Amino acid sequence: MNTKMIRYILAKMLGVEAILLLLPALVSLIYGEFSGVYFLIPSGILIVIYLLVGMKKPEKRTIYGKEGMVIVASAWILWSLFGALPFTISGSIPSYLDAFFETVSGFTTTGSSILTDVEALPQGMLFWRSFTHWIGGMGVLVFVMVLTTLDKKNSMYLMRAEVPGPEKDKLVPRTMSTARILYGMYLGLTLIEVILLLLGGMNMFDSLIHAFGTAGTGGFSNYAASVGHFDSAYIDGVISIFMILFGVNFNLYFFLLIRDFKPVWKNEELRAYLGIILAAVAVITLNISGQYPNPLKAFRYALFQVASIITTTGYATADYNAWPMLSQCILLMLMVIGACASSTGGGIKVSRFLMVLKCIKREIKQMVHPKSISIIRVNDKKMGADVLRSLYVYLMAYAGIVVGSVLIVSIDNLDFGTTFSSVLATLNNIGPGIADVGPVGSFAEFSPLSKIVFCFDMLAGRLEIFPFLMLFTASAWNRKF
Amino acid sequence: MNTKMIRYILAKMLGVEAILLLLPALVSLIYGEFSGVYFLIPSGILIVIYLLVGMKKPEKRTIYGKEGMVIVASAWILWSLFGALPFTISGSIPSYLDAFFETVSGFTTTGSSILTDVEALPQGMLFWRSFTHWIGGMGVLVFVMVLTTLDKKNSMYLMRAEVPGPEKDKLVPRTMSTARILYGMYLGLTLIEVILLLLGGMNMFDSLIHAFGTAGTGGFSNYAASVGHFDSAYIDGVISIFMILFGVNFNLYFFLLIRDFKPVWKNEELRAYLGIILAAVAVITLNISGQYPNPLKAFRYALFQVASIITTTGYATADYNAWPMLSQCILLMLMVIGACASSTGGGIKVSRFLMVLKCIKREIKQMVHPKSISIIRVNDKKMGADVLRSLYVYLMAYAGIVVGSVLIVSIDNLDFGTTFSSVLATLNNIGPGIADVGPVGSFAEFSPLSKIVFCFDMLAGRLEIFPFLMLFTASAWNRKF
Repeated sequence: MNTKMIRYILAKMLGVEAILLLLPALVSLIYGEFSGVYFLIPSGILIVIYLLVGMKKPEKRTIYGKEGMVIVASAWILWSLFGALPFTISGSIPSYLDAFFETVSGFTTTGSSILTDVEALPQGMLFWRSFTHWIGGMGVLVFVMVLTTLDKKNSMYLMRAEVPGPEKDKLVPRTMSTARILYGMYLGLTLIEVILLLLGGMNMFDSLIHAFGTAGTGGFSNYAASVGHFDSAYIDGVISIFMILFGVNFNLYFFLLIRDFKPVWKNEELRAYLGIILAAVAVITLNISGQYPNPLKAFRYALFQVASIITTTGYATADYNAWPMLSQCILLMLMVIGACASSTGGGIKVSRFLMVLKCIKREIKQMVHPKSISIIRVNDKKMGADVLRSLYVYLMAYAGIVVGSVLIVSIDNLDFGTTFSSVLATLNNIGPGIADVGPVGSFAEFSPLSKIVFCFDMLAGRLEIFPFLMLFTASAWNRKF
Repeated sequence: MNTKMIRYILAKMLGVEAILLLLPALVSLIYGEFSGVYFLIPSGILIVIYLLVGMKKPEKRTIYGKEGMVIVASAWILWSLFGALPFTISGSIPSYLDAFFETVSGFTTTGSSILTDVEALPQGMLFWRSFTHWIGGMGVLVFVMVLTTLDKKNSMYLMRAEVPGPEKDKLVPRTMSTARILYGMYLGLTLIEVILLLLGGMNMFDSLIHAFGTAGTGGFSNYAASVGHFDSAYIDGVISIFMILFGVNFNLYFFLLIRDFKPVWKNEELRAYLGIILAAVAVITLNISGQYPNPLKAFRYALFQVASIITTTGYATADYNAWPMLSQCILLMLMVIGACASSTGGGIKVSRFLMVLKCIKREIKQMVHPKSISIIRVNDKKMGADVLRSLYVYLMAYAGIVVGSVLIVSIDNLDFGTTFSSVLATLNNIGPGIADVGPVGSFAEFSPLSKIVFCFDMLAGRLEIFPFLMLFTASAWNRKF
């Protein structure tokens, strides 16, 4: 393990956070809030760390996948540890654990909140809270890669642990330029959304907050009623569409940019993703139509909630706790499915589900015709035995984390819907669940132990489990290999 | 597909059911109940079917795994369809769907019930209801194999689909004699339990009913309060121990019989099974101790419930709905784990979980040391890639059935705990779940559609999913190959 290089890169990344913390300080200045100075304190600490550790490049610079994963997992934790400071020092969120929870929730683009009165926060704090979503969205590393100068060979390994979803190989060979293009598209889409929200009558601050939350598929709002606060069909529509757009595999936008439409049109995952959305919206619209004055309104709320949950954003325009159990169960299912691979969304990812379905189909076929051989293809790419094996092990580890977390959280003795959905909502980086943690609820009532479990789940979910589990494996640190 | 041979074997098996139906008729006679004649009607129909189809052996007698699975899956459905008739004709369970549910629940050794007043049933009907557990316990086929005369080569394929759990190979070479020995042990253990229960002051009828329910890991009782009716520490203890015994891999008893103790002592699954029971009992005892006058009483209820749930029996001595959420969540987890392979219990099975844990461990190890090669062993046996692959696909199909079932059942708009646990309780052949379907509840309130889903789940769970799914696959019927 090249610990010197790990320390060096981490220090560089903390330096970036020092700069990012100046932005909310600026917002505080604009609004004339004194609390802005509380961003400068952690910013100062981070700069000192950077100057002490991150200036001198180590001689041995080679790092491997193992180091890459350790860096990424540590980076998310360190960013959250320092990012939480302004909330606590300023007194906005007095408990540091709560502030840490909120910041992890931000960087991992989860959107679960321990705040019971979000509107009481100063504008600067609200801005920082939502800005963490935007930073987290495309991955701390991709961001840092654009800003700092890493060797091409090294950044490849970081990328592998960072970019979500099973489909990474396409990106690897052209890491640096790809990162810039991806990030450009991310910025571009965010700007378009900001403009469209401004046109809908939102003010600049609200537009930024909600565009950050949509782009990162995070879900923090500065209003207690979330997007429901605006009660506007236009705003609901814009955010619905952008949530769906940010849940799409970003490689496909890449193809659109170079005017190569065939791979987009033929993309199985995209078709499945849109198909699931359509089906879910149709069933929920029918299921809830009795509760709304007209089918169009039911459709509007159904579309918004389906888009919000499948992309793991977590915004709400309706209290779906009041919807029938079928609609709630469909939403719970969408939580687990998640968005497309290589998008900013969380969850297990549509492409993994496609693979699983094809594996089951093949198994049944082989039971009927034992001599037949069939190869599993997703998006016309062969899925080798090793890809499938790690897919399975990923899913098993996922299930294991769900079970373990539910057991610990159940000590708090809340009802089963709250216990179960709070774990799903954090592990899949959604935000709200059902029952007590529903769209109008909060995570405030949980015990400190449960909040720590949720932080673990949010990080494990964002990092697709294995890099994070590795951080806790003693053997990753013991041997040099 | 050798349809003639399938029809022939199925007819033979229905002939066996005709004979079995005479036993509850005899019980009715003893108790002087007129309703005994209602067992004779289906019995007569089954004899006619047997005489028409099951007398002449077809010329082409070769059958393969495919036919074996179709036979087994069809047998459970046909036995349930006919076994439900006495309940409906006699008016004990007026709705035929409810009677079918109750009979499927019996044969699959689930123990879920649609009855709201079980004590109102005549003794003959109660006997038949519990007797289906005992018949189902070791598998309709093993039973039939002992009684009828199938070619040795053919019965091998049937066995493969029938005997529960991933560990089948040991049994296959010596099917007929193994079946006889297994069945002998099953009968022997049942008799010992009956005697011990009689010694505890139970009458003969109650002893038989509860021994049937324990041996088959079914869980039907003739009292509304289940085993809690007797309120006896002795009876609770006996049934707890026997439930645990019937959840052990029957091959191990085989080794004990031939005085070969090493494989028993070294059996990883057995150790894990007992370890899980110990841990669960310890945690639940602590968790519920506040609700009982002394720790010993808490221990007694905890042991009974843990044994009942992990072996998928489903008897109850306490209303665990009133226990804290942690205890309820542990029970839900035990529902999914299930008993040992090659036992009469249901669920995913402890050995599958051992494999999964080892796979996750290997994956993390390989991430740290990419060049290392490690082989997964369970009970000192190498787990090949094909074994692991079918394990994974099994688990995926399992999860798929859970999700699909929850979605359909949620249309009934009951609370989430009821919706989710009713699916787990039926698919894992447990019986009761939590909330409305808890130990004092029943499945009566569900819609006909949900009841059909539960029947599907109980059958899929008992047959370890794939033989049952194959029955619904068109291609299994289309080609001759």
